[in-house]
Amino acid sequence: MKIKIAIFGGSGYGGSELLRILLLHPNAEIRFVTANEHAGKAVSEVHRNLLGLTDLRFSKAPEDFESLADLDCVFLALPHGQAMDIAPRVPANVKVIDLSGDFRLRDASAFARHYGREHTAMNAQSQFIYGLTETNREVIRPARWVANPGCFATATLLGLAPLVANNSLSCRVIVDAKTGSSGSGAKPAANTHHPQRSNSFYAYKPFAHQHVPEIEQELKSIGDWTNELVFMTHSLPVARGIFASIYTETKHEIGVDDARAMFADFYRDSFFVRLVDGSPDINWVKTTNFCDIGFAARGRQLVVFTALDNLVKGAAGQAVQNMNLMFDLDEKTGLMLTGNNP
Amino acid sequence: MKIKIAIFGGSGYGGSELLRILLLHPNAEIRFVTANEHAGKAVSEVHRNLLGLTDLRFSKAPEDFESLADLDCVFLALPHGQAMDIAPRVPANVKVIDLSGDFRLRDASAFARHYGREHTAMNAQSQFIYGLTETNREVIRPARWVANPGCFATATLLGLAPLVANNSLSCRVIVDAKTGSSGSGAKPAANTHHPQRSNSFYAYKPFAHQHVPEIEQELKSIGDWTNELVFMTHSLPVARGIFASIYTETKHEIGVDDARAMFADFYRDSFFVRLVDGSPDINWVKTTNFCDIGFAARGRQLVVFTALDNLVKGAAGQAVQNMNLMFDLDEKTGLMLTGNNP
Amino acid sequence: MKIKIAIFGGSGYGGSELLRILLLHPNAEIRFVTANEHAGKAVSEVHRNLLGLTDLRFSKAPEDFESLADLDCVFLALPHGQAMDIAPRVPANVKVIDLSGDFRLRDASAFARHYGREHTAMNAQSQFIYGLTETNREVIRPARWVANPGCFATATLLGLAPLVANNSLSCRVIVDAKTGSSGSGAKPAANTHHPQRSNSFYAYKPFAHQHVPEIEQELKSIGDWTNELVFMTHSLPVARGIFASIYTETKHEIGVDDARAMFADFYRDSFFVRLVDGSPDINWVKTTNFCDIGFAARGRQLVVFTALDNLVKGAAGQAVQNMNLMFDLDEKTGLMLTGNNP
Amino acid sequence: MKIKIAIFGGSGYGGSELLRILLLHPNAEIRFVTANEHAGKAVSEVHRNLLGLTDLRFSKAPEDFESLADLDCVFLALPHGQAMDIAPRVPANVKVIDLSGDFRLRDASAFARHYGREHTAMNAQSQFIYGLTETNREVIRPARWVANPGCFATATLLGLAPLVANNSLSCRVIVDAKTGSSGSGAKPAANTHHPQRSNSFYAYKPFAHQHVPEIEQELKSIGDWTNELVFMTHSLPVARGIFASIYTETKHEIGVDDARAMFADFYRDSFFVRLVDGSPDINWVKTTNFCDIGFAARGRQLVVFTALDNLVKGAAGQAVQNMNLMFDLDEKTGLMLTGNNP
Repeated sequence: MKIKIAIFGGSGYGGSELLRILLLHPNAEIRFVTANEHAGKAVSEVHRNLLGLTDLRFSKAPEDFESLADLDCVFLALPHGQAMDIAPRVPANVKVIDLSGDFRLRDASAFARHYGREHTAMNAQSQFIYGLTETNREVIRPARWVANPGCFATATLLGLAPLVANNSLSCRVIVDAKTGSSGSGAKPAANTHHPQRSNSFYAYKPFAHQHVPEIEQELKSIGDWTNELVFMTHSLPVARGIFASIYTETKHEIGVDDARAMFADFYRDSFFVRLVDGSPDINWVKTTNFCDIGFAARGRQLVVFTALDNLVKGAAGQAVQNMNLMFDLDEKTGLMLTGNNP
Repeated sequence: MKIKIAIFGGSGYGGSELLRILLLHPNAEIRFVTANEHAGKAVSEVHRNLLGLTDLRFSKAPEDFESLADLDCVFLALPHGQAMDIAPRVPANVKVIDLSGDFRLRDASAFARHYGREHTAMNAQSQFIYGLTETNREVIRPARWVANPGCFATATLLGLAPLVANNSLSCRVIVDAKTGSSGSGAKPAANTHHPQRSNSFYAYKPFAHQHVPEIEQELKSIGDWTNELVFMTHSLPVARGIFASIYTETKHEIGVDDARAMFADFYRDSFFVRLVDGSPDINWVKTTNFCDIGFAARGRQLVVFTALDNLVKGAAGQAVQNMNLMFDLDEKTGLMLTGNNP
Repeated sequence: MKIKIAIFGGSGYGGSELLRILLLHPNAEIRFVTANEHAGKAVSEVHRNLLGLTDLRFSKAPEDFESLADLDCVFLALPHGQAMDIAPRVPANVKVIDLSGDFRLRDASAFARHYGREHTAMNAQSQFIYGLTETNREVIRPARWVANPGCFATATLLGLAPLVANNSLSCRVIVDAKTGSSGSGAKPAANTHHPQRSNSFYAYKPFAHQHVPEIEQELKSIGDWTNELVFMTHSLPVARGIFASIYTETKHEIGVDDARAMFADFYRDSFFVRLVDGSPDINWVKTTNFCDIGFAARGRQLVVFTALDNLVKGAAGQAVQNMNLMFDLDEKTGLMLTGNNP
Repeated sequence: MKIKIAIFGGSGYGGSELLRILLLHPNAEIRFVTANEHAGKAVSEVHRNLLGLTDLRFSKAPEDFESLADLDCVFLALPHGQAMDIAPRVPANVKVIDLSGDFRLRDASAFARHYGREHTAMNAQSQFIYGLTETNREVIRPARWVANPGCFATATLLGLAPLVANNSLSCRVIVDAKTGSSGSGAKPAANTHHPQRSNSFYAYKPFAHQHVPEIEQELKSIGDWTNELVFMTHSLPVARGIFASIYTETKHEIGVDDARAMFADFYRDSFFVRLVDGSPDINWVKTTNFCDIGFAARGRQLVVFTALDNLVKGAAGQAVQNMNLMFDLDEKTGLMLTGNNP
């Protein structure tokens, strides 16, 4: 079986990684990939890693959406604000996986506050399933529309879900999160200018990152979340990777072994969550769909560390994982992306 | 006036930075610098940045310490555990500044626990002044023996001192600290192997870093510290720099402006503490003696960010700052190390 | 069909990449992998990227080589000097692919000079085929013993082979080659110490790199090579990648288009050689088996640029490419390692 | 004595480094620094390394140039093409040091070809002295107008000057030059986008770099240069540093010791040229005004390696070195910028 696929927004890093994965996916057939500014160009001229692997060319986004009806699945990898125009126009028989923030939030005012624009398709939003595969697998399978989680949200939610589901937390939770420069996208900007970024580490968007409402919304659906969340994002001088240090206080003392057992149970069917000894390291998950999780504990202080690749488990990889579920495939299909050492 | 100086342990990064600074210090005269494994070699053969700037050669550590009596000041930049043998033998007229952890802790059992060896010179320890210049300036001036603070301790204490002095904190304090690879020293090791380290970020020594007791000891001397400290160290893929994200909860709401005012007052005589808008960045302090501090706040959550160079303000620079005080010089002498952009 | 495989030396970077590739190779079955210092440990404890992907454990090298007779193929990924003890003892029915320099040179004195030891198995050497797949495909297919090329040699030979085969060169050829830090192996050393290496670029082993005799030997087998070769190796501050700038003077003026046509013809059956516009970039070949080649020309000056991943096309990838040929598989099998952007 | 200085173009990296150096220069007084897009902003808001070190604010470029008559020296650190409008309008009593390419070339057609614009001030150009300090010291001292060399030109000329002056070269010379990302300036662009640049190495502008005519022009003034120059530029994944591997063929065999002696003699009065054993390394010259030079030789093949910081000896440092000469100061004044290890 081949899933007939279109990718909207193929020139950014999300699109780049969708292409890398789907080109070798045994059940995927990419019908077209759009990039308005590169229309007509070979995909491999923009993503030079793909030279020799595809003859695809970028096209403009279609004007007539009825022609999409012979597709099976559309990925939207567009800047925030564009998917809400496009998704509602996709024919009903075609599944949609949106990698942007457009359809993640059920609260229109939170969306407006964090994304700086009014939401124009809240009706459609209400039919979207939040695509954190490991917690929402059963509702993703039959979904027609999936809102793929943000990268920081994935790293944070996977680190907190078992604790919230087990109602283990008291007090505020502090998430000190760090991301590589590819998280800022493929377009050059002051904060990704190599001479500066290569020796930098700094905090940004204190308390205000747009993934915060998404995290809080989902924690409430996982369990009885009423804690305060302090969420801080920082910039790492590497291309890829997210690392979250999650500081919790548990109601009762939970040692590292107990924590590990709780997580092992919660993620028993989750191939892409790996529990590690000590700390995870972004080095071991780069370019893969894995989220590595480790622990440290002292008394009621439990620290959970998560590491993932922001563009794979934090974006394109999880999107394909969701596609696999939505088309009744093994969720690992096409995602055995072995990381490398070094 | 020239201060006649000896450096014990000149081949490591602490010694390297002492040499860089002292060679251009207008009041310093380096009489000798030891490095047993390099004895006889030109300093500039090991620290090739110094080629053309000095004809000094490394010597073996002297056997006869009485000959040191014609010195004014000895810097000890040796691996932990060696200074406690040496310091007590230095003639009484010679001041000692120790960059290791040997004389920082007043609690012998804490020392044994964190440094993995028994302390053999606790009598001497009791005469050491803790050399965090900004909080201890008045006792450092007349000191004969100074224990120079650890790099993480400096970053943490400078970020917490005004809040503790003003008795502003409630609840636990969480310090998420990150350091560059030079913090591990000049000797190659698995955790500083370039192919791996250059794409890594991970946590290490959870709760257990040897700077923790030093931080708690000093916080207690600065104010009424009874809070819980959660201290977590991480490894950054850069050569230099420490960044600490310090999560506090204040007794009363303190906004960013209030925090800034409090810190400005506390550090009004402290040239090397710079208060910045938003987040500091290790990029702007690298190779300098500055500690940059910034803030974020929401309700009673106050986050203090500190950034410094682990080898300068976190080691050799602060040591020279202390020497300046101990010899009645302006504390900035020889320390106008302008960072560079980029 | 499954090829039954043993890997000798699985803890280094060559072994690491062999494991990454062979674990997902549809026709490979790894029977055992040795690493004396890690015997008993899980492979995924050393190569933490492989966690969740294999239950293999490292074993000691076997004492009794007769037991190897039920294997099909042995990879030797050992430090130079060990394969010459092992290869001759492998049962005659088992194919051997050696990734070290032990069996590449037909001249025992050149071996002694460059590897600092006498060769003890020159009889065996004479039966080894040099495994530069693109030039030696037809003799590799039936080979029993293959000496896999060095990484610099691969980058240089692929850039020169068409020109030498077409007898196009006059005058000396200068190769300015640069390599990432993984080329120095998995063992920490002064030249791969992160604080220094991360801001370094320098030349090493001028004229004397051990890949030089291998390059000259093979150029002579490809064509009528009598030119002088000036070969210079440099260290890059990245983990992976080799880039060679090859300066030639051609007998007659050859423009970029002519050069490209000549190379396209020479490599018409070579999937893993990609001809690019302008310069290649190590960024586009990292973690893949591709060698990207580009050109610049002015008059009779023709510069060939080659870029490859030193651990893949320069080591483990080419070794598997050779295995594929030796076992009558498509040479791309298991080697569709898509690079990523970024 | 204080030299009254204005800097035109203070927001780029050239201006940034001029500020870093001149702020601590004992004989410099910066009267104003322009940056049209930042006019009114504190200098330390743009160059955050300078926070606490200056209260200067950026101003707009003055309209009335007569007011400049009370200055002693003007530095032009503007994009190519702007200095030729400004320099001729500077009052006759004020010395001018231009860091751009506007006044380096005596051949207007070469300028037009390499800089893509017609030269509009060739009269002024003829009065400019080329500011390669080490070769032109005697004509720089009395100069009113100095054209500061390009970074690649400095690295190449310092490596070739003694050989050309001694008429030692036969055959073509090949310069394989590599530069850090700051060479592309302070403005974000695709080739300095961190996610890509941090793992890149590639060649650019083959044969065509704008420093080539400048190099050839000066070689002819140093000696009897008639050789062919093959000049190739490459991009390094570091912020700072230029490394040139210069491949020459000498008329007679010159060993490393002879070469070193020849260079030592030629540079006997040149503090900022350091001759090193083996290869230099950009790591040892970063942030300093040194150019380190090393050698390798085999027969008549002599390879000269040069390393310098593109923004210091390759730009702002050399400009200040020239200013020192032009104002009768020791050329080292304000330039004792000790590099650091690591």
